[in-house]
Amino acid sequence: MNTLTGNAVVGQSGGPTAVINQSLVGVIEGLKETLVAKGVVTSVFGMLHGVNGLVKGSVKDLANVPAATLARVADTPGAALGSSRDKPDQDYCAKILQSCEKLKIRYFFYIGGNDSSDTCRIVNDLARKAGYELRCYHVPKTVDNDLAKNDHTPGYPSAARFVATAFMADSLDNRSLPGVKINVVMGRHAGFLTAAAALARRLDDDGPHLVYLPEVPFDSDRFIADVERVYARLGRCQIAVSEGIQDRNGRPIAATLVEQIEQDAHGNVQLSGSGALGDALAELVKDRLMKAANMSKPPRVRADTFGYLQRCWPDASPVDRQEARDAGRAAARLALEHTDGSIALVRASSAPYRCEFRRIELTDVAAKTRHMPPEFIDGHSNVAKAFLDYARPLVGELPLMERL
Amino acid sequence: MNTLTGNAVVGQSGGPTAVINQSLVGVIEGLKETLVAKGVVTSVFGMLHGVNGLVKGSVKDLANVPAATLARVADTPGAALGSSRDKPDQDYCAKILQSCEKLKIRYFFYIGGNDSSDTCRIVNDLARKAGYELRCYHVPKTVDNDLAKNDHTPGYPSAARFVATAFMADSLDNRSLPGVKINVVMGRHAGFLTAAAALARRLDDDGPHLVYLPEVPFDSDRFIADVERVYARLGRCQIAVSEGIQDRNGRPIAATLVEQIEQDAHGNVQLSGSGALGDALAELVKDRLMKAANMSKPPRVRADTFGYLQRCWPDASPVDRQEARDAGRAAARLALEHTDGSIALVRASSAPYRCEFRRIELTDVAAKTRHMPPEFIDGHSNVAKAFLDYARPLVGELPLMERL
Repeated sequence: MNTLTGNAVVGQSGGPTAVINQSLVGVIEGLKETLVAKGVVTSVFGMLHGVNGLVKGSVKDLANVPAATLARVADTPGAALGSSRDKPDQDYCAKILQSCEKLKIRYFFYIGGNDSSDTCRIVNDLARKAGYELRCYHVPKTVDNDLAKNDHTPGYPSAARFVATAFMADSLDNRSLPGVKINVVMGRHAGFLTAAAALARRLDDDGPHLVYLPEVPFDSDRFIADVERVYARLGRCQIAVSEGIQDRNGRPIAATLVEQIEQDAHGNVQLSGSGALGDALAELVKDRLMKAANMSKPPRVRADTFGYLQRCWPDASPVDRQEARDAGRAAARLALEHTDGSIALVRASSAPYRCEFRRIELTDVAAKTRHMPPEFIDGHSNVAKAFLDYARPLVGELPLMERL
Repeated sequence: MNTLTGNAVVGQSGGPTAVINQSLVGVIEGLKETLVAKGVVTSVFGMLHGVNGLVKGSVKDLANVPAATLARVADTPGAALGSSRDKPDQDYCAKILQSCEKLKIRYFFYIGGNDSSDTCRIVNDLARKAGYELRCYHVPKTVDNDLAKNDHTPGYPSAARFVATAFMADSLDNRSLPGVKINVVMGRHAGFLTAAAALARRLDDDGPHLVYLPEVPFDSDRFIADVERVYARLGRCQIAVSEGIQDRNGRPIAATLVEQIEQDAHGNVQLSGSGALGDALAELVKDRLMKAANMSKPPRVRADTFGYLQRCWPDASPVDRQEARDAGRAAARLALEHTDGSIALVRASSAPYRCEFRRIELTDVAAKTRHMPPEFIDGHSNVAKAFLDYARPLVGELPLMERL
């Protein structure tokens, strides 16, 4: 390939994670070691708040940031450059291309999920059509773990580590003061993060006792029967629920159940806000478990929605830290050899765990959603051993917890 | 004092914490080293689920638990013996006393908050009246930090550490994708835990930008004006709200605001469940900030309720781990010399931080609630430097987070 001289730009997009800054620093380091060192790239710019900043000319020169600062930034959660939820269409991407031309940018790196890879794809197409030579790279990131062609995605292992740790600790709280405990986990379309709750189990009666994924249609009657069964056996029940659970027709339970409960009791009320699904499920259990199980008084039912802490908690998985950094470096290195692509994490070996970084086409990953494969799911309210074997090496060592 | 021979019992009560097992192990170790070693105490029993288990004869012999197991249990969150929410009256306490007589218990240790110290007080009074010699000790525990005569309470520093860490990380998430972020923190009557959010601040524009405590009457109009001011300056706003905020008449906002919003829009609806307050405040901001600030579109508003993770997260403050253990040991040691009492943590020195354990009367702490003192509060939406100086040595070193 010819040597393409000019500047580089890197941006962060979508929901931040505990390790998205590792990838940012990986790209910067990778560029410095290769393209900048060879004199091919002059300046490395950072987009402030993703492409939203780029089209406004809001960029930051990253060349002079000391290595020690970069090292600390890498270990800091959140998007150090700021992020954006914009989903650029053709017109928006045309503006992105204009900004690239204006800043003499020939290397474009965008860290994010499937929307971000789609932005890369459109910008890449526009550049090609316009005859403007631009190397477009997508660096994978998402706590949902829903990118196609990837064994897993940077950001997921750390979020899964938080969820597993939270379920371990909360399970002991639930043993201390028994009752029904519902924990709502992120993941609008894919159940990988909710499934990670099952990593908390050590002994037979450890929670989570029930796991509900978006991939398995949710049925309220069956749910109550499940809870009743566990409660009868253990006198308590810890439940992992994905925020994205849906009914048989693909309607989100967060909408239907909340509506239904409120309608039944009080008329047509629309709820919103992040605690609503957990609260609605808790109401359902309070109301129906007592009748179903012929209890003399309502059971203790509590719901927590783990919320944004899942994606920003500063205790990243060691594997995730390293892989997120390496994914950024791989993108910078590949930009020397290929005009475009996305970095895919491919598991090269399971025991010992080892992961490789491969270049895939932007179209392989752009705007596609990966779901939990059937072999990771056991029945309608559990995950399979195959999932646990898959996820365990990713999250790292979990805290030791002992019983009397 | 005479040597009182017999058995000992220890129990855990109320909401568990990250270090309540440290106190349990402290009591056991203290007893083994003194009363058991001297042949004064024969068996050490653990109440399963507090006095609820004791009155049912549901106890566990703790004498043969290996030291290595105890060490691991001490580092495990949750109540290893199980806990109870029972608030015993005179009749209930009479049954407790009967169980003590039956099990030849002469040493009674109860780890918990102000309700648990009240149980100790009643049992102690009944025993004295009945002429049954019993040494009753209360060992302090509560994440709310609301025990009288204590500088602080075991359990609080670890929960405060979680809250401060969560606000640091969430503040970076909020910088990445700007908007209004409301985080609801535990503490029904006292604001100490919510106030700990302010420990997250490093730089001028770091969150939390607003802090609302139960000690300061909450006014919705003033709240919106506060948010509007911060949002105008920074384009974002991170808010710490105690679950126990109240209006001028002492009515919990969790009840009034939720009701009011639902009433205004849709009729008379009662909400319940743990996410309700955060969601109601988020609705209020969405609705009114846009009008107040003449925005063209509604601001991004999100609410998280930190929930039970605050009291069980397995990353205890080092100071808290040690003090909780020492409080348990102090109770066992004092039971050799005094008939009853509670252990109070008294700050002996601020720089360097040093804490002492003193015996206080059960009546000093029983059923009393301590609030944030006025000197810890700055205006209606912030904490004072005096609070930060007070809390900083308790939570231990917080993670380093770096900006570009």
